Amino acid sequence: MRILGRFRRGDLHLTRVEAFSDGVFAIVVTLLVLELKVPALKDHGSVAELAHQLAELLPKFLSWLISFIIVCKFWLNHHHILGLARNANFGFVWLNSLFLMGQSFIPFPTALVGEYPDNKLAVSAFGIVFAINTLLFLALYAYIRRHLIKPELAARQDPHAVFKGLIGPASYLLGAAAAWIDVRAAFVIYGLTPLFYITPREWRGAAKGG
Amino acid sequence: MRILGRFRRGDLHLTRVEAFSDGVFAIVVTLLVLELKVPALKDHGSVAELAHQLAELLPKFLSWLISFIIVCKFWLNHHHILGLARNANFGFVWLNSLFLMGQSFIPFPTALVGEYPDNKLAVSAFGIVFAINTLLFLALYAYIRRHLIKPELAARQDPHAVFKGLIGPASYLLGAAAAWIDVRAAFVIYGLTPLFYITPREWRGAAKGG
Amino acid sequence: MRILGRFRRGDLHLTRVEAFSDGVFAIVVTLLVLELKVPALKDHGSVAELAHQLAELLPKFLSWLISFIIVCKFWLNHHHILGLARNANFGFVWLNSLFLMGQSFIPFPTALVGEYPDNKLAVSAFGIVFAINTLLFLALYAYIRRHLIKPELAARQDPHAVFKGLIGPASYLLGAAAAWIDVRAAFVIYGLTPLFYITPREWRGAAKGG
Amino acid sequence: MRILGRFRRGDLHLTRVEAFSDGVFAIVVTLLVLELKVPALKDHGSVAELAHQLAELLPKFLSWLISFIIVCKFWLNHHHILGLARNANFGFVWLNSLFLMGQSFIPFPTALVGEYPDNKLAVSAFGIVFAINTLLFLALYAYIRRHLIKPELAARQDPHAVFKGLIGPASYLLGAAAAWIDVRAAFVIYGLTPLFYITPREWRGAAKGG
Repeated sequence: MRILGRFRRGDLHLTRVEAFSDGVFAIVVTLLVLELKVPALKDHGSVAELAHQLAELLPKFLSWLISFIIVCKFWLNHHHILGLARNANFGFVWLNSLFLMGQSFIPFPTALVGEYPDNKLAVSAFGIVFAINTLLFLALYAYIRRHLIKPELAARQDPHAVFKGLIGPASYLLGAAAAWIDVRAAFVIYGLTPLFYITPREWRGAAKGG
Repeated sequence: MRILGRFRRGDLHLTRVEAFSDGVFAIVVTLLVLELKVPALKDHGSVAELAHQLAELLPKFLSWLISFIIVCKFWLNHHHILGLARNANFGFVWLNSLFLMGQSFIPFPTALVGEYPDNKLAVSAFGIVFAINTLLFLALYAYIRRHLIKPELAARQDPHAVFKGLIGPASYLLGAAAAWIDVRAAFVIYGLTPLFYITPREWRGAAKGG
Repeated sequence: MRILGRFRRGDLHLTRVEAFSDGVFAIVVTLLVLELKVPALKDHGSVAELAHQLAELLPKFLSWLISFIIVCKFWLNHHHILGLARNANFGFVWLNSLFLMGQSFIPFPTALVGEYPDNKLAVSAFGIVFAINTLLFLALYAYIRRHLIKPELAARQDPHAVFKGLIGPASYLLGAAAAWIDVRAAFVIYGLTPLFYITPREWRGAAKGG
Repeated sequence: MRILGRFRRGDLHLTRVEAFSDGVFAIVVTLLVLELKVPALKDHGSVAELAHQLAELLPKFLSWLISFIIVCKFWLNHHHILGLARNANFGFVWLNSLFLMGQSFIPFPTALVGEYPDNKLAVSAFGIVFAINTLLFLALYAYIRRHLIKPELAARQDPHAVFKGLIGPASYLLGAAAAWIDVRAAFVIYGLTPLFYITPREWRGAAKGG
């Protein structure tokens, strides 16, 4: 209890937390492209050979695209929930660091699934990583709602929003399970899941209620 | 319609959109240099061998230079159009994310054309990527003008600015077509195109009218 | 003396020092993941082979995890001590640059220990680098307390805080020494050390005293 | 003339120019460490072999150190001269982009000289790149003084500061010339040159005059 109490202390500026987080988000989305390596050609001038090699890169383009969209979606929702907080404390900063650790990990499963799009374990791991990232996001969100929410916004929150948010990890895990039957089904589920969260839930709730 | 309406909601801070975008721009321009790999020398101390190897890198220096200038030009114009907006909504954030996805992709065709400067497909793809990036930029610009423009600036906008902006993608596509005849012609067109946009159009228009 | 006096001059904005530092922190934590390279598989579709290869990566995951947590801890404490300063001068900026140099070096020993987790020198070097980083941090902290502290915060500082902070480097060096007996003991010590600093000391002191 | 006039237009926010520049600086200094590659060991557990391999990396550590210090010095002086400007226009933004292009290029000669510290061309090129970077910096500085200086600071400027600043490029070029006689002399000159600029000139002038 005393240990946990320590994390409730501290009055940090949200601006530096945002700057650090934006830096991590920006680097993660930009590093993703480094996996798109220039193919080695035997005949440097051959259009046919290059076209063939670029077509071989298709799974990497696809995994890059999905990861880019998902990280942007996390950025947008992160932006939203930090707007709910009146300040930052140590618990928040550490949960945020764990969340960013999950984000910075994304290039690895993205590269893995781009390299081995037919490997059931690789495709499954891709979904599990996104499920864990969404859970880390929901933990951060729940912490803000419980300890740091601006008083004027507290009443407008949907009390079930965190619980409803679990549909995200559930959907990614469904995709991860589907990978063992058909990897294409997994890709479809991974591609569709972020659409549920394409605009933050709260704002939709606020707009419906307003 | 209801789907589209969702994107018009949200009142996001432009500062975080700018911080995220500036991060992506800064990383893209800096990553470009990673393609300039230190050549392997047989005789480590040989000046002649190193000079020869550096001369071989010339196409990579050239593609690095062109991409750097073009991304800086996008940054400047991005800075300009965000200054027109009074706030950000979800539609804006997602268009901005798509635009940044295009920017973060630039290191790949840059590396491709630097590696295979005589390959017509590589040189052509370079121009097509810049054409798509300019179209994504114009989509963002058109969205801001239609939905988010500061009231005091609305009257001063050139009503044909977005249409006139299409000269950019047209020029890049012209270069992409020219690559199939002579790759050097394509490089000249790619190098000249950003000069049309070296200062944002609106400011020029404003200065002319004022 | 005149030389040292030069460093006491200058009235720099802390915001740009923070922006530069946050950029370095964000890149360091995100670059760490680049060491997690996609393994080469003989049978691309083989789940067993990929599972085996990922298990082989375990030391790299572990070193990535430890370094990520430690850099986040440095970020949090850096945020804290910059909040104590009323402005920046040249001495502060150069000490900060040396500190960031230490931070930006962290990916190298992290990669080294991830590659050779059984090599006593690699494991030992990992701890020595963190000891040096903590000393650089304490030098920055001591400089702020001596020259730049906000008058209203000066009285609330624990006069022994810098001295107490030496427990960090001492603990890392203990781990570095332990590596020569048993590398596993070193990893345990490295993993436990940041827990001492998980919330900045001053705030704890302030909370106790308040 | 009309062309040049276009660049004097525009009223951009310095904050985004700073954010973009700080991002580039932060990435450049952090990317430098990527050249420190983990050596390949035959016997993974051998302390002697690793110690030997790390000693072989010494030129890379040295070039990393010099480049890190020099980029930090550029950052500090860049921070200083942007503080002199009341706003940004297109000419300033483009000169700043060219300057950042020079900064982002630094990892390449750093890697080159780290790989081939005995190659006279590599060592010479290292100095030439820093000379060009300093000239780009001085161009930016001269532009600010001529077109953008805050009225209250104009009178306090040393009228010869830009001219005096040429000692920097001259010193780097001296080192580049010395490389053809003895590469060690060149490294000494490169290491000493940034010490002349370790605190911005203007502030020293201001302090002397005040």
